[in-house]
Amino acid sequence: MQGLYFEELSVGQSAEITRVVGAADIKAFAEVSGDVNPVHLDDAYARTTPFGERIAHGMLAAAYVSAVLGTTLPGPGAIYLSQSLRFRRPVKIGDAVTARVTVKALDDKRGHVTCDTVCEVGGKTVVDGEAVVMVTRRDA
Amino acid sequence: MQGLYFEELSVGQSAEITRVVGAADIKAFAEVSGDVNPVHLDDAYARTTPFGERIAHGMLAAAYVSAVLGTTLPGPGAIYLSQSLRFRRPVKIGDAVTARVTVKALDDKRGHVTCDTVCEVGGKTVVDGEAVVMVTRRDA
Repeated sequence: MQGLYFEELSVGQSAEITRVVGAADIKAFAEVSGDVNPVHLDDAYARTTPFGERIAHGMLAAAYVSAVLGTTLPGPGAIYLSQSLRFRRPVKIGDAVTARVTVKALDDKRGHVTCDTVCEVGGKTVVDGEAVVMVTRRDA
Repeated sequence: MQGLYFEELSVGQSAEITRVVGAADIKAFAEVSGDVNPVHLDDAYARTTPFGERIAHGMLAAAYVSAVLGTTLPGPGAIYLSQSLRFRRPVKIGDAVTARVTVKALDDKRGHVTCDTVCEVGGKTVVDGEAVVMVTRRDA
């Protein structure tokens, strides 16, 4: 269950997943996180906010980035060191969120890999940022 | 369901929640995020990793920070603009994670509030970083 080794990575390499956010996902995320902010859960309240309707937790879209890193690029064996996140647009119920990870820089000395991370809905960025992961070498 | 207004915030103000991470939380987080990395789900695999046992998703601890911001400080009405996260130590099953948000700077002109965010287990930092949220003014 080893993912990619450091030697198998190169700048520009990219992987993505797409997930449709359902009301059940928002409810599940609220339960597991404890983030029961009514903008996520209460239609009547959400209509009074600038969003006009319920929105997903920003951290749910961020979790899709973690899913790409943890399952595909680089996949199991990588150690998540840091992540920056800018929440640029709301994610609404029914949105198909594509989370994409693209290798940006390789630090051969430390085995660190810096990746651009972006979540898009309909081609528009909803969350972006940068991840750093430590990746195992084949000969380690 | 309005949280705190900008005028009610001051530097040094702090709020926290504590949640014990159960195996069921990790399973729920894997399902909602799609991050099924076996280091979170598979005991036998996890024993072969440097962690020696299953660990929680880093983003699960991060979600507890979002819970403090979304429910307490500043609470509903605030808009999450950005979050940085450094994953410093693993979170294991049974760990009680305290997520704490502390106001660090207030940008009166833009209504932006910068907060230090930390997750601790037994007094040791597991995740830290910084959040920026936009907070409603009372007179808005």
